[in-house]
Amino acid sequence: MKRGELLYEGKAKKIYLTNEADKVWVAYKDDATAFNAQKKGTIRNKGELNNRISARFFRLLGAHGIAHHFLEELSATEQLVKKVTILPLEVVVRNIAAGSLAKRLGIEEGRRFSRPVVEFYYKNDDLGDPLINEDHIAIQELASSEQTAEMKKVALRINGLLADVMASCGITLVDFKVEFGMDPAGNLLLADEISPDTCRFWDSKTGEKLDKDRFRRDLGDVEGAYREIWNRLGGETHV
Amino acid sequence: MKRGELLYEGKAKKIYLTNEADKVWVAYKDDATAFNAQKKGTIRNKGELNNRISARFFRLLGAHGIAHHFLEELSATEQLVKKVTILPLEVVVRNIAAGSLAKRLGIEEGRRFSRPVVEFYYKNDDLGDPLINEDHIAIQELASSEQTAEMKKVALRINGLLADVMASCGITLVDFKVEFGMDPAGNLLLADEISPDTCRFWDSKTGEKLDKDRFRRDLGDVEGAYREIWNRLGGETHV
Repeated sequence: MKRGELLYEGKAKKIYLTNEADKVWVAYKDDATAFNAQKKGTIRNKGELNNRISARFFRLLGAHGIAHHFLEELSATEQLVKKVTILPLEVVVRNIAAGSLAKRLGIEEGRRFSRPVVEFYYKNDDLGDPLINEDHIAIQELASSEQTAEMKKVALRINGLLADVMASCGITLVDFKVEFGMDPAGNLLLADEISPDTCRFWDSKTGEKLDKDRFRRDLGDVEGAYREIWNRLGGETHV
Repeated sequence: MKRGELLYEGKAKKIYLTNEADKVWVAYKDDATAFNAQKKGTIRNKGELNNRISARFFRLLGAHGIAHHFLEELSATEQLVKKVTILPLEVVVRNIAAGSLAKRLGIEEGRRFSRPVVEFYYKNDDLGDPLINEDHIAIQELASSEQTAEMKKVALRINGLLADVMASCGITLVDFKVEFGMDPAGNLLLADEISPDTCRFWDSKTGEKLDKDRFRRDLGDVEGAYREIWNRLGGETHV
């Protein structure tokens, strides 16, 4: 596999073409942004930790039948994935009130919901990634109604699987964001990454935040939190 | 029927108890507010026009089987309605892009959608009446899932009925907001008002705005626009 030209540079990753048209090369960066890129910084070793953690999660979800884009790790900070057309939606699942939902509904951070909440956000930096509903998705043709229903179903399934594996590591899955893409055959695949950048993880005993909120809120030792997630998942012993 | 003590004063109406426990007396005011009450003003004769227009619409919807709270007009600016417990939700139906939706999705005002869009907003001044989805309604217990489905269905039915009657008057129904309440027997009733305060009406030929946007955007002759709606509906000849 050979790395080709840079296709796209995002906030936390670079995507390169490869010598195979249906595969792209993903290089995870240490760069971190928050609040629609108004806050910027670097988290040492984040690229490596997120590459490792996301690969671990995608393998786990694949083993449970979730169709995804991940193929293989290429280096400490790089992975090979199927080339997909990303749908311009962030699909968020929440088990406990935190972040923008706590603010939107005026409720205390930390309250566990009677059932998971699924939200769709329109990926659009200029608009500030607004919350939208399924009618908005339909009229803007951001996804078909079948795709919307499938994304919701798969996101809830991922929630169950991730919450279980994290609970077994002493970590509470508060919420997470996933993205989906379409392969050339029209299959909907889980794409992007699943990591402490895209999930809220709280230590089940102490409540300590082990995710990007440490960066957003200047809580310190962001690298240590990401490394803690990797270690709890078994770390290098499972690589 | 005797008017009792003031039960509640809203931005555009006062609600009084009556000598019958299941009925309340509504007095429409000329006061107008916009942008979560950051803009305040008075529209001459608005109380009378909205009382008349809303009564006309509720009678029309009732004739088509929509269950509602309206009972009878008491004076030019007052009406008698069933006492209900208002659900803390605004149900919005949109046919054409305008207002907050055009801003949220970054689309031009005036684009007709391929199908009507239904939105739920959480009635909460402190939070700025945020857009929410059906999962948010469920976890906050703002309505049961049956009520949510029913409100959506009724709102779409109202959209069809109002759009037809307005089209026959040369007016395009762009969007509108309705509220629902529960009577003591647990029935879901259409409540609040339907008027140029709560709808966007555009002249079908000229595109002229004949609604509260004239107040919001300082377009002038707000009273004339409201009166035009009343006249197009047949005005006094039908009272």
